[in-house]
This record gives sequence, structure tokens and C-alpha cells, in this order.
Amino acid sequence: MTKTVDPWGSGEIKIDDAFLKKFGLQKFSGEHAELGGKFFERNLLACHRDFDVFYKALLTKKRAVQLTGIASSGSLHLGHKLDLDFFLFFKSLGAESHLAICDIDGYVSRPDAKIPSLSKAKEWSANNTAHALALGIEKKEIYVQSQKPARYYEFAFELSKKMTENTFRGIYGHLDLGKLAANFLQYADILHYQLDEFGGPCPTLTGIGVEQDPHARATRDFVRRLPYKLFLPSFAFFYHQSGLQEGKKMSASEPDTAIFLDDSADAIKRKIQRAFSGGRESLELHRKHGGNPDVDKSYEILRLHHPDTALVKQVYSEYKSGQMTTGELKKITIEFLTEFLAKHQQRVEKNKTTAEKIVHGN
Amino acid sequence: MTKTVDPWGSGEIKIDDAFLKKFGLQKFSGEHAELGGKFFERNLLACHRDFDVFYKALLTKKRAVQLTGIASSGSLHLGHKLDLDFFLFFKSLGAESHLAICDIDGYVSRPDAKIPSLSKAKEWSANNTAHALALGIEKKEIYVQSQKPARYYEFAFELSKKMTENTFRGIYGHLDLGKLAANFLQYADILHYQLDEFGGPCPTLTGIGVEQDPHARATRDFVRRLPYKLFLPSFAFFYHQSGLQEGKKMSASEPDTAIFLDDSADAIKRKIQRAFSGGRESLELHRKHGGNPDVDKSYEILRLHHPDTALVKQVYSEYKSGQMTTGELKKITIEFLTEFLAKHQQRVEKNKTTAEKIVHGN
Repeated sequence: MTKTVDPWGSGEIKIDDAFLKKFGLQKFSGEHAELGGKFFERNLLACHRDFDVFYKALLTKKRAVQLTGIASSGSLHLGHKLDLDFFLFFKSLGAESHLAICDIDGYVSRPDAKIPSLSKAKEWSANNTAHALALGIEKKEIYVQSQKPARYYEFAFELSKKMTENTFRGIYGHLDLGKLAANFLQYADILHYQLDEFGGPCPTLTGIGVEQDPHARATRDFVRRLPYKLFLPSFAFFYHQSGLQEGKKMSASEPDTAIFLDDSADAIKRKIQRAFSGGRESLELHRKHGGNPDVDKSYEILRLHHPDTALVKQVYSEYKSGQMTTGELKKITIEFLTEFLAKHQQRVEKNKTTAEKIVHGN
Repeated sequence: MTKTVDPWGSGEIKIDDAFLKKFGLQKFSGEHAELGGKFFERNLLACHRDFDVFYKALLTKKRAVQLTGIASSGSLHLGHKLDLDFFLFFKSLGAESHLAICDIDGYVSRPDAKIPSLSKAKEWSANNTAHALALGIEKKEIYVQSQKPARYYEFAFELSKKMTENTFRGIYGHLDLGKLAANFLQYADILHYQLDEFGGPCPTLTGIGVEQDPHARATRDFVRRLPYKLFLPSFAFFYHQSGLQEGKKMSASEPDTAIFLDDSADAIKRKIQRAFSGGRESLELHRKHGGNPDVDKSYEILRLHHPDTALVKQVYSEYKSGQMTTGELKKITIEFLTEFLAKHQQRVEKNKTTAEKIVHGN
């Protein structure tokens, strides 16, 4: 990880002890792992920053707020679903949960070629909100940036006084004014539930990718400089779902790298069939030496998304031994995704009216 | 005027035809002067940018919005009163009038040493609002930035996408993030009454100092780049009231340069007695050659603020001829200010509760 990071770019980051030490990050412990769920069972979390403060509040049933956000700039893909699964997991453990639908952010941080107007961002907001509702997030847990009370915006502006141009450029390597503005909203998203007007100071958790740590540190730096006594926000870092091609990140900007939650059965089939696999050059070699599930994109989808941990483990060992072929692994993945997304898309349809109401504030 | 301007600094600008041509500014015409009032009678307006669009709407009784703002960062002085007199004049001519009390702006654009917190800015907001009410601006004509509906903030963020770092730096010569944020609120202040949610497109007028023209041009540039059909805002430029010392601007940052609307009779007397005068070195020379009202600070106060144009003219000629001494001119000025401000301060007291309600939104 270089000092300058573009959170909108892609890039793989190697997490080792030296990396953790350098950035003051911590590993999750065996005690944390007792929380269970796929994130701990399947080692989907890379590390954390100050998780224990939040964890302790959660265990002792004190107010513990989690917040995550979706920039309204396109269809959601499996990578977004993973963020929301994380959110749903901590919701199930009793966290006060807030999902930000970031319509203003989505518009100002994306080029006009992608999001030409606020109304386009709001279309995506309604789409994304319907998907979030379909995944099990409740109406009361969702807010849209453009529907917040004035105090929220006032706070975002307040933060602008607490960062210098050089700090910003040091963290992000640029000074695009739209992205700058979007960042101040993001800082406000993470911190505002600690203001008296929104419930008061308490530990908070936000799940993000490791490459977003500069964001996390900037947000914590604000807390030290604000005239309020807030808790330093905690962050859990997960590994991003990688793209369907080798060395790619799953990204809405490159549609073929991703399975979208809107994808049809045909699209799923086509994309998985073309996805990078860990199979051998021939069936004979595959049977003899086994496949490599650790680089296989279909296996990654099962590991990150299939609800049955036992099945995922079984697929891993059978594929690794060569007992399961790449074709069979892809078939399982296609069937799983097709069935899951068909049902999900039905729930999305049912939630569209509610989503519109949330986005347009009535 | 250099290309790079600091609207928070001070500086004298020479207005001549070459200057007007270079920046595409226009002189007010004889037809405009028929509007009357001290601004036209006493030549207090330097020039304008696109005034005719607004003027035509005003004459034909179409919706014509005027907007001005006060950054909540200290006591108001006579220079602010001049801005508000301009505002009251166009209100009397039938303009839809909005005065922005800029609490967020005041906090984020000023150093912590001056405005250490938002609550301090809000104290100044309440003070400034009480003064505005006392001068004759109505409650319904005043809004406080932090009390606006979400659409206003959304619009300010929207604007952030329409300016580049280089443009901003080219106009303002810096990239202080707090001042940057304050600027986006100012652009929104000037433009938002043309959004459908706030009344729809119409000509608007804002009175500012000539050194603020880069602000004006930036605001007009946005209009060309926004996905809305708005009128280009019009601007009238007045000469700023100069400071009480030679070569100074009347500035709240340097209290001895200014008469504040909060000043006591003693303070007024002391400041006027020490103010720079256009008198001669001796009474004998003064009687012989006459004084110079054009550089005299007491005369400037009468010219800008005394309600009686005939009296102002008389003072000018008597002082210039040497018939009136500097002591006599200062006495007239002290008496005028003392009486005016005593009555004004009584009205301020009566309006304090209303002002608090406006600032805190109840």
C-alpha cells in the first residue's frame, strides 16, 4: 500500500504482519471469532482498527452503531452484497444499524459520462434501496443523503474546516472538488450518529475494504480535532470480492468483472462459464493434480456467498483433489446464483414502491 | 485588479473604462438613475454586470429576486449597513428579497482564533439578525444557512462537481478547504431561489463590492454548466465604505477602522475624533484653501449614511470652501451617528427574541 491511495481505483493489497504493524491495524482474535457467521468461519475479514471498543458495547448491550453506505452510481453486484451481508450480520447481533444511500455522493464523485445528473443518481438510489430491502435491511435502517435534516449537512461543512488541502492530497493523491465534497459527506455519514441530535456519542463500526483505510484514518483524525467528545470510530476490513477475470476487482465500472444482483439467468451462466478457473489444462491433468480453488472465481463466489459452510468446505476439498471438475464447480455456482438471484429479484420487485418513497421522502 | 483576488482581504480598486471593458462590466445609465434613492443620487454604485435583466423584470412587475448575505463572524459595522441599505432600497422597489444569515459560512471560512465553534457563529447570527430586523428587514425575508431544507445543501454539493481545483485556485489564489466549502454555500445562496423548489427561474440581483467580481463570475459560470435553465444572476457593485484611517477598508477584523452598529456614544465620539480628515494643517489655511471632503472620513459617513441628500451636499460645499471646519464636520457626524445608533440599538433590543427564534428555528 502506497501512502497515496485512490479509493475509486482498484488494486490488490497484501496483508501481512509487517503491513498490520506499519498501519497500526489489528488481527481479529479467537474471541471475536466466537461471534460466528460466515465472516469469521470463512476468514473473510482481513483485519480491524479498534474493533474492541465496538465489540465490548455490543456484548454488554450498550448502544453500538454500525453504518455503511452505497454510492448511487449503478447496479449492485456481489461485492456490494458482501458489504450488506456484513451489515446484516452485525444487525443480527444487535447493532443499531444505518445504511446510507449516497445519492449526492454518487452524483458528485462520478464523472458526468457515468452519472450526468442528480436525478440519474436518484434512479440508482431507488434501485439500490429496493435491493437492500430485498436482502433484509429494514426501511427504518435506510437513509438517503439528500433527505437528511439540516444538522447533517451543517456537520459535513463543519468538517471542511478541520482538514487542510495538503492532508487531503496526501491521503487521496488528488483534489477533485466533487470527490472532495463527496468525502466530507462520507465522513459525516460515519460520524453523525454520535452527535447529540442523532443519539449521542457511542462506539461505531463500519466495514470497508483495506484499501479504504486512509478514509478510516481521516475520519478518526477528525474526531480528535472536533469540538465534540466522540468515540473514535471502529473499522473492520474485509477482502473485496475479486473480479471474474484474473487480477481484477469486481467493479461496476467493468461489467464483465461482476455478477450484478440484477443479472438474468442467461447473463449469470455466460459470465460464470467465462470466469477464470483454477482447473488444469486437461481433464486428465485435473484428475491427477487437482484444481486450485484458491484462484477459482466460481469457488470464490461460493465461499463468499453460499449460505452452507459445510458445502463450501466440501467443494473446496473435492475441487482441490481433482474429484470435482471445473465444469461441475461452475454448474453448482450457476445453479446457486440463478436460484438465489431469481428469488432476490422477486423481492426487489415487491420493494420498489417502498424504495421510491424512501428516496423521494414520502 | 489582479487575476487572483482574496475576497477576505482588503484592497482598493480603480474603476475606469479600461477596467470595465477588461472585465465586461457596465456603467449604470441615466435611465437606471431614475430609480432614485441615495445609491443613484450620490453615485454610490461603481458598475454592474447584467443589471438590465433584473431591472426589466422589476419594472414590469415580474418576479425579481434579490439576495444578499452576512457571514456570522462579528459585529456589523457601517459597511454592512450600506449593503443592507442597498437591499432595503430594492425591497422598496418591489424585489422579492432574501437575506442569508451565513452561520455555517462564518464558522468554516474564519480561523478558529476568531470563530472557534459553530455555536459562536450562531451567537453572531442572532446578533446580526436582530440588527437586520432593526434596520427594517422582515422576518420572512431572513433565512439562516443552517436552517435550510435539504434541497439547498444538495444543490451546494451539486455545484462542487462543476468546478475544478484549477478554476478555484485561479479565482481565489488558495485552496483552503473551509473557505472552499463556504464558497459553495455562497454560490447556492445566490442561485437556489431559481430552482423549482424555491420558486423557479427568474432574474436575480446581488449587491457586492467590486473586488468580489470573481465570485460573481464563478457564480455565473455555474449557471452555464448546470443541468437547469436558470437566468444568469445580475450583480451591482458598490464602493465599499473605507476605514476611518487613511487607505484602510472598514473591516470588522480591525475594530478601529470601523463604526459598529453596537458602538456606544463614547466609542463613536472617540473614533470620529481620531478619524482621518480632509482638513488643513491650521484653521487659517483651512479657511483660505478649504478642506478636502473627498478624503474626509466623517464626510464619507454622511455621504453614505445620512438620509438627507440636500444636507450632505451642503456639508460638501461648506467644507470644501473652508466655511465649515473639521471640528464642525466631526460634530455633525458624531451627532448624526449617536442619535441614529441609539435609536437603532433600542430597536435591536426589541428584536432579540425574534432573532433567536429565527437562528434556532422555532
